[in-house]
This record gives sequence, structure tokens and C-alpha cells, in this order.
Amino acid sequence: MTRNIRISPLTQAAFAPYGDVLNCDGDPDKMINAGLCGRFHDRARVDVTDGQVGISLFRSELRALPYQLDLIERHPAGSQAFIPMSMDPFLVIVADAGLQPQAFVTAPAEGINFHRGTWHGVLTPLSGPGLFAVIDRIGEGANLEEHVFDTPYSVNF
Amino acid sequence: MTRNIRISPLTQAAFAPYGDVLNCDGDPDKMINAGLCGRFHDRARVDVTDGQVGISLFRSELRALPYQLDLIERHPAGSQAFIPMSMDPFLVIVADAGLQPQAFVTAPAEGINFHRGTWHGVLTPLSGPGLFAVIDRIGEGANLEEHVFDTPYSVNF
Repeated sequence: MTRNIRISPLTQAAFAPYGDVLNCDGDPDKMINAGLCGRFHDRARVDVTDGQVGISLFRSELRALPYQLDLIERHPAGSQAFIPMSMDPFLVIVADAGLQPQAFVTAPAEGINFHRGTWHGVLTPLSGPGLFAVIDRIGEGANLEEHVFDTPYSVNF
Repeated sequence: MTRNIRISPLTQAAFAPYGDVLNCDGDPDKMINAGLCGRFHDRARVDVTDGQVGISLFRSELRALPYQLDLIERHPAGSQAFIPMSMDPFLVIVADAGLQPQAFVTAPAEGINFHRGTWHGVLTPLSGPGLFAVIDRIGEGANLEEHVFDTPYSVNF
């Protein structure tokens, strides 16, 4: 038997237990470049226990809805931010300490940062080129825990 | 009298003295997510002398060509990466130790990382929403040097 999860719009408040929403809501913290550019400063809790913070690119196949969620993962040694390189919303799945998943969809031009140790689904772009910049820990040693759901969830709007 | 600079396509080779081109050229370093996602691993020389590496967002007005270049800047305490959050190419200006500028245009879905201390122009999107994620040093103290050209450069294709 499949369990259903409904996708909600991503909001700072709903996502706060899991990470940071990276967007330009509100006023910039500072205007730079002679007033032509707004800086929304230091919007993610970037946090690695060792190694270094680095920038990688992910290119993912697109996923279709309903999405069958059977796996979540977490990285005990570091936060992980996903910055979409196109204006396409993407699906974001997180789970709490009790492994109860929640699903969100981003707005265009919105990234997210999973706090260190947060359970989350794998990268699930729904449209566009599936290209993301990823800011996470670069270092040696295992930094991946996985949990497989015996009964998968069906994720949809 | 105005001096002219021609814009060249951005290539790893031409940009190497100044920084890193962040794109998915070539094969991924690793396939993840059951083979559905390629990781292009650790593509930027992220380098801060103190403080922390953080993620900010920049929202810039668009610039028109020919672009009048009268100012370059550099950050002695840290590298600075610009990840476009749309598929729009943008203008990248750098200068060598002799303050001779060079201008490049990115391909869609391409970011750049200025190495620590590299002279560069301000953010100059040419089309699209002008939204970028910026990965740079978060910390106290001055981290900006500017150079004003007495005679501006006119930058164009």
C-alpha cells in the first residue's frame, strides 16, 4: 500500500526546521555597485565539521509526478545548498527526526540549503535543464547516511 | 578618448589566470542517485583568509552594451563565485596585475569563480532577471580595493 504526500509551496517558516530558503524576498541587506545591485547577505547556515566548503555542479535527470519516494539521506558532516541554474521550480523533500517526510516546491529563482544532518530526498528537478550549483563539504571520509522506506510514499500536488 | 575592448567567449583556458569557469563540460566526476545525477566535483578554488565561506544572493540591474568600464575591484581576503540563477549569459570582466582588462561572455548555465585577489568588474548581467548566488567570504574587516580608470573602456562584441 502506498502512502500519499502532498506538495506544499516552499516558505521560510515551514522550511526553517530543515534549512534555509535562498531567495530575494524582502529588502536587500546592502546596495552595492553604485546602487545598481542588491546584496542579500549570508542567507545560508553553511556548516561543515571538517574539510572545506566547495562548489560542485549537479546535472540531474528530470523526475515525474507522482514521485515515488523510497529513499532519504543525510550528511552528518555538512550542510548542502542547491542553487538552480535555471528559473525552473524543483521538488524538495525533507524528513524530521521521526523520518516523517514533507514535500515542497520552490518558486522560480529560489535555492535551498539543507542544514547539516537534515534528512532529505535526492535532487528532484521537475522541469528545465536539471542543473544546480551545490555548495557542500569537500573532504575525506563517509558523509552519507541513507534510509529506505519499506512502504514508499507517492508525492504529488 | 575611449579605448575599446572586445568581448570573447568564456573558456577555461583563457580564464585560468583569473579564476574558474563553472559548467558541466566533460564527464561528471561521479554518478549519484542511482545513476540519475552527475556530480561535477569541487570545480572552484574557494579560498578565504579568515571569516567563513557563505552564500548570498545578488540582484542586479541589467547593463547595456557598449558597457562603459571605469572601475574594477578586488577582494584580497577571499575568492568570489557568481552562479547565475537563470540561463542567461552575463558579461565577465577581469584585469591582470598590470590592470589591463579583458572581457568575456558566459554560455548559458555557466558560473564563474574569481580567485582571491583577482581584479574584476562589477556584476554585469546583460539579460534575464539579474539574479545570482554569490559564494564568498563572510567576515569582518575591509575586503575591497577599487581602481578607477581615468580613461574608461568601451566594452562590446
